[in-house]
Amino acid sequence: MARPAGAQCCLRAFSSLRAVASTPAALADRQLQRGQQLAAQQQRRRRCDPTAAAAGGGPDNGAGVPPQERKAGSGKIGEASGDFFPEDERLQNWLFDEFAAVSRLFGFEQIDFPVLESEELYVRKAGEEITEQLYNFEDKGGRRVTLRPELTPSLARLALQKGKGLALPAKWFSIGQCWRYERATRGRRREHYQWNMDVIGVPGVEAEAELLSAIVTFFQRLGLSSADVGLKVSSRKVLQAVLQRYGVQEASFGPVCVVVDKMEKIPREKVVEELAALGVAAEAIEGILQALALRSVAELEEVLGGETPAVADLRRLFELAAAYGYADWLVFDASVVRGLAYYTGVVFEGFDRAGVLRAICGGGRYDRLLGTFGGEDQPCAGFGFGDAVVVELLKDKGLLPQLRHEVEDLVMPQEEGLRDAATSVAQRLRASGRRVDLVLEAKRMKWAFKQAERCGAARLVLVAPEEWSRGAVRVKDLASREEKDVPLDQL
Amino acid sequence: MARPAGAQCCLRAFSSLRAVASTPAALADRQLQRGQQLAAQQQRRRRCDPTAAAAGGGPDNGAGVPPQERKAGSGKIGEASGDFFPEDERLQNWLFDEFAAVSRLFGFEQIDFPVLESEELYVRKAGEEITEQLYNFEDKGGRRVTLRPELTPSLARLALQKGKGLALPAKWFSIGQCWRYERATRGRRREHYQWNMDVIGVPGVEAEAELLSAIVTFFQRLGLSSADVGLKVSSRKVLQAVLQRYGVQEASFGPVCVVVDKMEKIPREKVVEELAALGVAAEAIEGILQALALRSVAELEEVLGGETPAVADLRRLFELAAAYGYADWLVFDASVVRGLAYYTGVVFEGFDRAGVLRAICGGGRYDRLLGTFGGEDQPCAGFGFGDAVVVELLKDKGLLPQLRHEVEDLVMPQEEGLRDAATSVAQRLRASGRRVDLVLEAKRMKWAFKQAERCGAARLVLVAPEEWSRGAVRVKDLASREEKDVPLDQL
Repeated sequence: MARPAGAQCCLRAFSSLRAVASTPAALADRQLQRGQQLAAQQQRRRRCDPTAAAAGGGPDNGAGVPPQERKAGSGKIGEASGDFFPEDERLQNWLFDEFAAVSRLFGFEQIDFPVLESEELYVRKAGEEITEQLYNFEDKGGRRVTLRPELTPSLARLALQKGKGLALPAKWFSIGQCWRYERATRGRRREHYQWNMDVIGVPGVEAEAELLSAIVTFFQRLGLSSADVGLKVSSRKVLQAVLQRYGVQEASFGPVCVVVDKMEKIPREKVVEELAALGVAAEAIEGILQALALRSVAELEEVLGGETPAVADLRRLFELAAAYGYADWLVFDASVVRGLAYYTGVVFEGFDRAGVLRAICGGGRYDRLLGTFGGEDQPCAGFGFGDAVVVELLKDKGLLPQLRHEVEDLVMPQEEGLRDAATSVAQRLRASGRRVDLVLEAKRMKWAFKQAERCGAARLVLVAPEEWSRGAVRVKDLASREEKDVPLDQL
Repeated sequence: MARPAGAQCCLRAFSSLRAVASTPAALADRQLQRGQQLAAQQQRRRRCDPTAAAAGGGPDNGAGVPPQERKAGSGKIGEASGDFFPEDERLQNWLFDEFAAVSRLFGFEQIDFPVLESEELYVRKAGEEITEQLYNFEDKGGRRVTLRPELTPSLARLALQKGKGLALPAKWFSIGQCWRYERATRGRRREHYQWNMDVIGVPGVEAEAELLSAIVTFFQRLGLSSADVGLKVSSRKVLQAVLQRYGVQEASFGPVCVVVDKMEKIPREKVVEELAALGVAAEAIEGILQALALRSVAELEEVLGGETPAVADLRRLFELAAAYGYADWLVFDASVVRGLAYYTGVVFEGFDRAGVLRAICGGGRYDRLLGTFGGEDQPCAGFGFGDAVVVELLKDKGLLPQLRHEVEDLVMPQEEGLRDAATSVAQRLRASGRRVDLVLEAKRMKWAFKQAERCGAARLVLVAPEEWSRGAVRVKDLASREEKDVPLDQL
């Protein structure tokens, strides 16, 4: 029996909320609390409350888990959250399988990194939210370490580690947990999963086009259309051209991008103020703001001229999108900058057309990240795709799959004297590849039917004295309610 | 082209070693170092060096990753290790898929927990190695947290969290990372994955029999036989009966078990000394040591009497093993105690018959763990199965699978003017479900053949001017070396 989608949503929502586990005494209390929090969170997000945006608009996974709020002092166990009950785990597995399947369709290979990394991997001093919210600490050996806030720096490290032995281009994907630590005063902990796809060694926008195609393919497999979601695209080279025009020094580029990225989250005056604090002249600030308001490549060309790399890249990207067949998913939007300091070229983010959710995913080109780790630079492009926002969207659209525990046979002895017989029956079925739930205690028939329904069993296989003496078992088809004796060798 | 198993082993061994990533400058150095460490580690383990045993004989995953040793000061990035290059990740995925497949054959549902848990979840004060080696720290909010050293306490917490809403028996499995922190002076970091299966709510040894059956099924799927590996079984009730006989107080039970578990790792005199330090009388110590030397249930019955729970449990367990058909895998061995304080009944561990490796897996009954968290006790049994030792074993037996990157088509434009055409061809193939590596830069044919081999492509699909003008592409079957034109709609 399929569970209604609504119930699924709710269950999943709990896992998005990521149970902040606590001492048993506080648990019942919290179950209720969680439901209330969830409702409040959703409302907040729907209303595009700036608090929610500031908390939720993650630097670059584009995703992030809804904030968890709880009373101070509650939840002593499982501080960092992340519990997945079976119903949550099924949805998680389904989502991750889709991430992996799309990556493999595109010929990408999976990699993985430690969850605990050296803090220095993320120290970029550009004022990024992500580096300000590191879940970091000093370990027993006196080393500054952190639960990774994103996957890209680890990937860059891996590429450097391979050195000349790395066959280029490398096309890698990864699905991993990321953390951020928000101030305890806000009562929030953050943990989520991120799907990353990265191309190392391809300088042209063909890499970005391929990555965007993978994202579109993923959306399509989930049942989403270009009427539901879109991909905003721009290039950091737009800002770069503007900054160059006004003689702003190159070292300011990263920090300027980080400030500009906050445009939708903080007031315009504050952005102007922060840019001025970076030493950007008033005239240049005006130029930046004007450029960010552009909404077509043609307008961009008018402002920057057709020969600039920004315009050439974007024109080519849109051509490729047409060749791939996803041009209708793409929108040029100069205001897209992304919050990570290391992007150097094309940047993009997935958004819901209804405009109620935070960014679904985000990425871009980062040609100079490897160099910052002391290695040789390589042209790189990639994206991060979180597990939370897309589930919210699927829920809204009624597209969440109905997943359930899928046992094929429930095997039970009718009496304890037949337990060994039932055991051998279960083994026989498993040997043939069937998923079997073997009843391990003395139970009544009524319980067995309930259990069969709970575990989604297709058949109830009863080992009963009379049938067993004839070398058969009693099999009940739980869909048709038909019952018959089946000889052991025909099971 | 299949890679020889030997190469796989080596690659995997590197991942077992879990790259302690470092700054790029130190990387080349370390590549060499890693190989040397690996060889040294393997030798040490083969020789059953007590140092290796002490370091490696984990408290209860039974598994544990080989120790990582490196010079102090090296490896500044990625302190906790855990890098997986594509070849490592494939093996990892294969192993985890097998873990999951077996769990599902037995009707178990997957769950997951946070990697970061409250320290208090593991504070058991019984002198267990696992609690002495917590990878713990204080977070920014002043909370004592730890990277989980094992999965069982999280599972118990989850069960308590569900409270009365948990349908019993619950059959859960989990595959997750675990950490231990060993003294920096030894230059070791530890991280590994563990597969756990647990039954909550079944008081009888039917639960243990089912769990052991799952382990045997897993071994069989990997190609291992009962001539390669076995499962040593005993019950903590044996020790309990001995302690009761000598009037040792019940509070000492856990600590006594933890000491006794070290028997194979530390000298007998030291065990006697530690037991005496726990207040166990000399006579009782003698009784304990005698009981641990027993190697058959019949002998055990002679010593304890046939009516004791220990004997009854074990007798029934062996009967069930016969019904399941895995009796030949089981060995009674009273010296098996396991190093975790919380076990209360049957305990078991997987071992290689050649006797060169550490325990492959371990588990048992823990009926009183939930109570220690302030909840209502539930009968529970489960096991932990690490990802490292079994791979060593498979390597020794030549049973490691030959896994490789599996792209189906490599698609390439013969000239840049056909890039958009090649893109549309790749998309067409992907839409039909084929895994396609699209060449994203201008490359020569020679490179394409090399790349096709590298990514395991079955076909090279070349978009060339002449064929394209006829609505076809050039397809080369890379196994047969046959080449032909294929119209687009027949691709």
